[in-house]
Amino acid sequence: MKMFVECIPCFFKQALEMGRLFTGNELIHKEMMDEVAALVPKFSLGLTPPEMAREMHQVFEKRFGGQDFYKGIKDKSNRRAMEIYPKLKEKVARSNDRLLTALELAIAGNVIDYAAKNTLNIEEEIQKLLRDDFAPVEKGVFEYEDFKKDLEVAETVLYLADNAGEIVFDRVLIEEFCGQRKVIFAVRDKPAINDALLEDAIFCGIDKVAEVISSGVDAPGTVLKYCSQEFLRIFNQADLIISKGQGNYEALSEGRGRIYFLFKVKCPVIARHSGATLGDIVLRRI
Amino acid sequence: MKMFVECIPCFFKQALEMGRLFTGNELIHKEMMDEVAALVPKFSLGLTPPEMAREMHQVFEKRFGGQDFYKGIKDKSNRRAMEIYPKLKEKVARSNDRLLTALELAIAGNVIDYAAKNTLNIEEEIQKLLRDDFAPVEKGVFEYEDFKKDLEVAETVLYLADNAGEIVFDRVLIEEFCGQRKVIFAVRDKPAINDALLEDAIFCGIDKVAEVISSGVDAPGTVLKYCSQEFLRIFNQADLIISKGQGNYEALSEGRGRIYFLFKVKCPVIARHSGATLGDIVLRRI
Repeated sequence: MKMFVECIPCFFKQALEMGRLFTGNELIHKEMMDEVAALVPKFSLGLTPPEMAREMHQVFEKRFGGQDFYKGIKDKSNRRAMEIYPKLKEKVARSNDRLLTALELAIAGNVIDYAAKNTLNIEEEIQKLLRDDFAPVEKGVFEYEDFKKDLEVAETVLYLADNAGEIVFDRVLIEEFCGQRKVIFAVRDKPAINDALLEDAIFCGIDKVAEVISSGVDAPGTVLKYCSQEFLRIFNQADLIISKGQGNYEALSEGRGRIYFLFKVKCPVIARHSGATLGDIVLRRI
Repeated sequence: MKMFVECIPCFFKQALEMGRLFTGNELIHKEMMDEVAALVPKFSLGLTPPEMAREMHQVFEKRFGGQDFYKGIKDKSNRRAMEIYPKLKEKVARSNDRLLTALELAIAGNVIDYAAKNTLNIEEEIQKLLRDDFAPVEKGVFEYEDFKKDLEVAETVLYLADNAGEIVFDRVLIEEFCGQRKVIFAVRDKPAINDALLEDAIFCGIDKVAEVISSGVDAPGTVLKYCSQEFLRIFNQADLIISKGQGNYEALSEGRGRIYFLFKVKCPVIARHSGATLGDIVLRRI
């Protein structure tokens, strides 16, 4: 998905969010805004949002050194998600359709990330999804039957991770199908917002159910031109790809075939582009 | 109120909103974002948001000529508000406390402006406030008794207008007290977002209940250093000033005495600064 003009205010919001994690000094926040402002004329409408975000991160890296601004948040999300992991498993065990419940929970994990960065109460969100009558808000496009069929015949599945913490929910989903096939779980190579890295995947035990690799990317989305050769080989050969979250959708939505995008629609631009409504959950093959 | 760093993303949003009213061409929207980006390093944290907005408008004026981007929206708001004017009057007539009801309606007018620029349904908002059980959402600070006392002894009242359309609601309020005192109604001198100008005040019949003047300002807030000498004389001599909307609050909140600010809290920065909660209505003397 190419960038839209309305992504620009969001880059400034993201920069401010990062600045606040780094320091309480408003003068430094303002400096960061100035740095992003200098990038705006270079932001071409032909690029994807994760590519833009990558440029922004590079500027901050130059300015603040190799800061992992979201380290604290990622650690906390991982720990909290691991605490509820047994309850997620119970929920799947009690379900009539284990795969569907696991899919719904995987998207719920994506919601919790959103809560973390907004004013929603995370504990409340978690309690909501652990309730017996939990059902994801609204399903936009949700190609579950097709997904099930494609998954059945896939021998290798590449799973593109999104955020730390959320990957525990991905693990629950992967555990539903990893017995019969090889699963490769790809994370970012370097810090990009609160996206999962190798250390997060290992902390959350993903290495017990899948082969964990780095995509080679330092952007908050799997931008193929920045991926490693090793990753691209796996990407091209996998029978099925599960792409989690908006960032990966933004980076890969122009591709065709074999990719199931699984995400919650968190912004109006994505809603428009994906033909879904804000707040919808989407499972869609492109 | 001095600008906060988080006002910067909002300036980009506002620029995009203006761009969309002007043209559907996304390349021109992007050019406008580039123009705003060039201003960001010049935005000092010591200035108020209306001062920043003024600089942005000047850039657009240079780029697009003397465009009144919001002319269509303002005309529509004026017409719609004039249509419901008789119903607003009935509502006040039926009320046990006419002044309070008129105050509440004046703030409701401020809500409708917000609806116009967001995804809320304006007609729904209007129907809501015309209902018999209408009461403004939550009152934050609401110094009604003090206001009533100060108004009773005031011989001259200066009313600082906010948006077109909304001024019909202001008229209903002014009609509750203009019989016993002189009222001066001040509008912006040049287009600033959808703020009311002289032509709007006359269309909405404000000249029948008050002396309508221009503040001399071309910013979306009464920034005193850009006001005319004539306005400043009135501003300094008025017994009571009613300042409507967030823009005027931003411009004048550092002043002291005689100003009652009347607005709905529409953004988190104003909420923090005014000690109210997002969505609250505020009537407060500073």
